[in-house]
Amino acid sequence: MNYSLLIKYDGERYRGWQRLSDNIPTVQGKIESVLSAYLEIKTEISGAGRTDSGVHALGQVATFVSKAVLDCENLKIYLNRYLPDDIMILSVAPAADTFHARLSAKSKTYMYRILTDKNPFERRYAMSVFEKLNIDDMREAARYFEGTHDFTAFTNGKSKKKSKVRTVYRIGVEEKGSIIELTFEGNGFLYNMVRRMAGVLIEVGQGKISPSQIPDIIDSADRSKINLIADAKGLFLVKVGY
Amino acid sequence: MNYSLLIKYDGERYRGWQRLSDNIPTVQGKIESVLSAYLEIKTEISGAGRTDSGVHALGQVATFVSKAVLDCENLKIYLNRYLPDDIMILSVAPAADTFHARLSAKSKTYMYRILTDKNPFERRYAMSVFEKLNIDDMREAARYFEGTHDFTAFTNGKSKKKSKVRTVYRIGVEEKGSIIELTFEGNGFLYNMVRRMAGVLIEVGQGKISPSQIPDIIDSADRSKINLIADAKGLFLVKVGY
Repeated sequence: MNYSLLIKYDGERYRGWQRLSDNIPTVQGKIESVLSAYLEIKTEISGAGRTDSGVHALGQVATFVSKAVLDCENLKIYLNRYLPDDIMILSVAPAADTFHARLSAKSKTYMYRILTDKNPFERRYAMSVFEKLNIDDMREAARYFEGTHDFTAFTNGKSKKKSKVRTVYRIGVEEKGSIIELTFEGNGFLYNMVRRMAGVLIEVGQGKISPSQIPDIIDSADRSKINLIADAKGLFLVKVGY
Repeated sequence: MNYSLLIKYDGERYRGWQRLSDNIPTVQGKIESVLSAYLEIKTEISGAGRTDSGVHALGQVATFVSKAVLDCENLKIYLNRYLPDDIMILSVAPAADTFHARLSAKSKTYMYRILTDKNPFERRYAMSVFEKLNIDDMREAARYFEGTHDFTAFTNGKSKKKSKVRTVYRIGVEEKGSIIELTFEGNGFLYNMVRRMAGVLIEVGQGKISPSQIPDIIDSADRSKINLIADAKGLFLVKVGY
């Protein structure tokens, strides 16, 4: 039987989603360890998005296979009881045999949070910029990212994926008090791509880059054009669409 | 000249408000250190409420005296620049000569936050109880605390204040998703008194104490009747009234 998990976590204490060695705390590693204890057999899970070290999730999805038929509600309670306070299982549900958290994903939504003034209670979940940003310019710049482009300039060069072409459906720019919330919706994002786009948008807001330069940066396919990779702590995987 | 500061802080990293030795991080110590650097003379501040280790503030008030006439906006910018991210100065303003943050205070408002279900992004700023609480019973119990009482049972016995009589104007009990927010307004609170009242209200919500027992607990003046002192991390000094 195939099952899916919907997961919320604070990534601060973790070296990202993906399991590394046993001594390194990762979200996947923590969940697999508690899940394997419940199922009494070593079980691997597959996550939709391999969030990086320090990145958070409001709606990560993961799938796993179990030979036993499971009581989903009971498993959810068990996982939440034995997982640390910073990882929460929102739901456990049976999934179709062909469903795979990563391979079946059709779209992803990320949120990036920027703090434009000191705020003791937001600093852990936003990048501190502490200056007024030009929202209109950021909105104009965001439009240039939308659509289908080769995003080579927005990767770290380590990505093994062959094609760097992705479609960005929408980038929302919302101001909520001293927080600017960027929402990125696309069919998929390359490694570090959202944090690099957020970095460019912050520099646009600071007046260091003009919105009309964005097409040139994209077309250059030159990673050295990106000066700022926005902090991991401001990034949230919000939703995976299937 | 007499000046007042309005201050917001995340108390997690601090051993409370009140200055201890130089090596121990306290909110008062941090602010005095930066303020003294700005004024180029060792300056002490006096806070309205001596919040305990790990307790937060949304509106702490402190006063200090300066021989020089100050540019308040300039000082505010300087303090926010050199204070750590978890301490924010909301305002600096001249005050009447007779004004003293603690001695002039007429009322205080505290908020206590309880988390009734796992939530990775709330756990630092609320006490984790992780069970459904009976809100109606908590509201009924809260009524018994309101009014003027001798709150000896709600102190830790170390309080040096002679009178343990205080007036609680209002205790609000609000449910917001998995957060229960208690609001305590009174003319003043004894050391640990809010955390002890919150502890009793949690136990009422759990059915361990019935609302009608509250008057007996108060009248007993017996500290051993209180089983639970609610965690510091759920407590916020919200407002000081003058």
